[in-house]
Amino acid sequence: MAPQENKPSSLVADWSTLHRVFIRPEDESSRKTLVKYMEQILFGLHDFLNKHVGVTEEISLVKLAEEYTDTKINKDPKKKLADVIKDIIDEIAPRAVNVASPYFIGHMTSAIPFFMVHLKAITAALNQNVIKLETSKVLSVLEKQILAKMHRMIFDFKNEFYLEHVQNTETCLGIFTTGGTTANLTALWVARNKCFPPKDDFESIEKNGYFEAMKAYNLEKTVILVSKRGHFSLRKALGILGLGNQNIIPIDVDSNRSIDLIKLEEKTKELQADKKTKILAIIGIAGATETGIIDPLPELADICETHGIHFHVDAAWGGPVLLSDKYSHLLKGIERADSVTIDCHKQFYMPMSSGMVYFKNPKALDQIVYHARYVNRPGSVDLGIKTLEGSREANSLILDSALKIMGSKGYSLMIEHGIETAMQFAKMIKERDLFQLVTTPQLNILTYRVVPKDIQEKLKTADRKERQKLDTVLDDINIQIQRIQREAGKSFVSRTRLKTSSDDDHNTVVLRSVIMNPMTNVDILDEILDEQESIFNDLETQQMIKKT
Amino acid sequence: MAPQENKPSSLVADWSTLHRVFIRPEDESSRKTLVKYMEQILFGLHDFLNKHVGVTEEISLVKLAEEYTDTKINKDPKKKLADVIKDIIDEIAPRAVNVASPYFIGHMTSAIPFFMVHLKAITAALNQNVIKLETSKVLSVLEKQILAKMHRMIFDFKNEFYLEHVQNTETCLGIFTTGGTTANLTALWVARNKCFPPKDDFESIEKNGYFEAMKAYNLEKTVILVSKRGHFSLRKALGILGLGNQNIIPIDVDSNRSIDLIKLEEKTKELQADKKTKILAIIGIAGATETGIIDPLPELADICETHGIHFHVDAAWGGPVLLSDKYSHLLKGIERADSVTIDCHKQFYMPMSSGMVYFKNPKALDQIVYHARYVNRPGSVDLGIKTLEGSREANSLILDSALKIMGSKGYSLMIEHGIETAMQFAKMIKERDLFQLVTTPQLNILTYRVVPKDIQEKLKTADRKERQKLDTVLDDINIQIQRIQREAGKSFVSRTRLKTSSDDDHNTVVLRSVIMNPMTNVDILDEILDEQESIFNDLETQQMIKKT
Repeated sequence: MAPQENKPSSLVADWSTLHRVFIRPEDESSRKTLVKYMEQILFGLHDFLNKHVGVTEEISLVKLAEEYTDTKINKDPKKKLADVIKDIIDEIAPRAVNVASPYFIGHMTSAIPFFMVHLKAITAALNQNVIKLETSKVLSVLEKQILAKMHRMIFDFKNEFYLEHVQNTETCLGIFTTGGTTANLTALWVARNKCFPPKDDFESIEKNGYFEAMKAYNLEKTVILVSKRGHFSLRKALGILGLGNQNIIPIDVDSNRSIDLIKLEEKTKELQADKKTKILAIIGIAGATETGIIDPLPELADICETHGIHFHVDAAWGGPVLLSDKYSHLLKGIERADSVTIDCHKQFYMPMSSGMVYFKNPKALDQIVYHARYVNRPGSVDLGIKTLEGSREANSLILDSALKIMGSKGYSLMIEHGIETAMQFAKMIKERDLFQLVTTPQLNILTYRVVPKDIQEKLKTADRKERQKLDTVLDDINIQIQRIQREAGKSFVSRTRLKTSSDDDHNTVVLRSVIMNPMTNVDILDEILDEQESIFNDLETQQMIKKT
Repeated sequence: MAPQENKPSSLVADWSTLHRVFIRPEDESSRKTLVKYMEQILFGLHDFLNKHVGVTEEISLVKLAEEYTDTKINKDPKKKLADVIKDIIDEIAPRAVNVASPYFIGHMTSAIPFFMVHLKAITAALNQNVIKLETSKVLSVLEKQILAKMHRMIFDFKNEFYLEHVQNTETCLGIFTTGGTTANLTALWVARNKCFPPKDDFESIEKNGYFEAMKAYNLEKTVILVSKRGHFSLRKALGILGLGNQNIIPIDVDSNRSIDLIKLEEKTKELQADKKTKILAIIGIAGATETGIIDPLPELADICETHGIHFHVDAAWGGPVLLSDKYSHLLKGIERADSVTIDCHKQFYMPMSSGMVYFKNPKALDQIVYHARYVNRPGSVDLGIKTLEGSREANSLILDSALKIMGSKGYSLMIEHGIETAMQFAKMIKERDLFQLVTTPQLNILTYRVVPKDIQEKLKTADRKERQKLDTVLDDINIQIQRIQREAGKSFVSRTRLKTSSDDDHNTVVLRSVIMNPMTNVDILDEILDEQESIFNDLETQQMIKKT
């Protein structure tokens, strides 16, 4: 047994402190202290974040890094919980990024409803591990229920189907993952294994490996097709799965900025004719990371059906739009997918890190079954049998609770606000002389760029070569504006590269805005554009902009 | 813009409710309410868990499942936050598993220090996404620091090394993952890519795929070698990576229950001689999931060095033992590994789901670099460039804070308590007539089984065939005992299958105990054994045990 020391100092690790730390104090005054800490977390952080309209303190990365170079672990306790919390509020929070600010409109991370912090605290306090029934019990059952609810939201099968599968231990309608990346990876992992059924000595890719599969089927390569707006996790998934990330075939987008169906159809036929190539999947995007654009899902479903190809929809961003009566029609066709990715920490407004992937066929996940002797035995309810992850927290409880608290209507209000505010933003951008709207929002994401008046004039008559030269100048201007605005710390938009017109081969820099914070309104958006104008004017005054 | 409704009912989702939910109430009384909720979470759950000594309510899975079959998402809000919390305390918690109970000694999940709930609440409130600097800033810098601290704990390079790398944006000492499974997967992913450097037209597995790699190197398969006690995530990793999970070569354990070095050496030589096979890695286990046993790491390092093979140590369980001056010697040799897995949600006592993987070579993770246009651009500090995951919460802040609060000494006390209590438990098992100790604890895990006296007698003189017959009877007894004890809900040990002696080919059922809760003591362990004896006696009385 460990020694039963009883040193009084609270900064010494001893046995009695440890016991207190685990048992938790039972007397009234200690309880009050612990609750006070939680109050500081809820409101100390909150007040700080609210007081500072901006997104982060102005400090250079180099200077910041200098303070984090000690690499020795302290032997004795260094700080009390109270001081750790105080430090986080006073030192960490100001130098973190206030993603909850309505001026933070650059990434798919935003304010989350305050109750999410309560729900996360509950999952931590329960500390269930949903890999197996023996460490989760009712949470495994609850998880299966919420998976069925989401499956129904996507595929909308008959009630009998859900009664049969909701608590069926032999089938699995979907799984929770840690985000869109692992959700997409899981979908392609399942599709990969399904693609190559047993043949002669070859049993499965999972068992025999990809080299054996290619030999058994006399093939040279396996590809997936997705528009150029496909998320980089798809490339990563192909790399991990051993298929080689060069085998992602990027299809151009058309004038709607969604996948060019004619080119897709052509490429599909061409690849089908090539006897050495297998098409693993065609991917439809429902809310592209960079533009928010949704691919024409019914037409993609048709192509997949015609050619017998796995149809995966990456709705990591757009999935929750299904909850809006007003806009769910934008995702029409998703119900014909074989698999669908949806993120929880995006438009379900849950804390990091939570995603999901769903399969139309309740037996699809049998492709990736793993058992172990000490858990996850065959026939058990253990959810870990069919997940990429091993140990896993009960994020399902958060989604379930959030839906109870807000209803689908609560979510719709947020989603509709985002889409409609983005439309207004697009209008505002078009009305300003200095700006050019590059992609019109279909959902709540849009891109634009700063184009000074003299360059606008030149662009009107420029030929392709001249245009490219002008675009390079514009790239430089927009990179500078984005960087200066970010570093000033008051507001934040992100940037990426896109073609401004479809016959360009130059990807130009655009500013990217994601409107998902219900507190973001037109006044704030006006301020953000004002700031960008003012940064541009300063740059011009300082002659920091190279003239063409 | 969304409609500015103002319905008063709190169970209607309207715009003003949404605003309240996001802004959080500013007046004193609403703040008090929110803090009260957190108090309920901290102590309502806590009191429940403390009052109920046992691990779960007695209820059949079928009955439980019946209550979770509604698969329609509610349109309007259904419950207030207060009621959701109340339901979780009253309805969910009793039917979840009280992993914090000192009577729960069956899995690698346990009580966590109460302050972990505070820290998890902080990460949720900040909601940083450490995939990129733009959504995390100081947290990315802090993460690099804690990664360097852990790397130093494992590899113990000179101070200059850490000064060079701690905040170096070109190198990476390790990454946070969501657990041991993704840590092991990442290690093997890196090893896989490293194994096949560019050759002629072949650039990399990541780009060209595994089939091209095999062709370029004129090989047929790629294998890893690990003892039979290797975690099932290794098999899964080979499946995912396209190498085929049949290519995990299981090596027998010797009488110490660790990898048989002679057999490993033989197998290594045999495979090295086979020109069609490439050995990807040899894996040393530092704390086997089933037995807690540590492989002879220095000898494994020698073999890997001699043959030029990647040496991975799966220290998901045992890693934190490095913090104990008294027992860190058990992990000697780990500093010679190429990569090391350590879990945070195991013996770092953090909430689900958090793990880590470290690489000796600070450039090793370059094997899995991914960029995107809108984030993670080349040369940036963005941590997501070299991780399996995309979006990721700042678990690093929890580990950093916990080490500040407890120091390495606080962790050592817990680790030493576990090891020493397990040793006492082993002694207690040996002293009881009804029990047989199967694996002696090297760390804080042991296995044993119930062997009735008459069978013990028969086993003494039984030949191999008779022994196997008797073992089958014992399997049945032990499965029943484990199941009945689990379902009764007072205490919990798990079960698995192991060979009881090395020349058996039958894997017999054993009871498995993991001692990691500082509140678990010899009195509690005595009660658990008493209960098992009493279950056995009842079974015998009811003649439920088939006689040989």
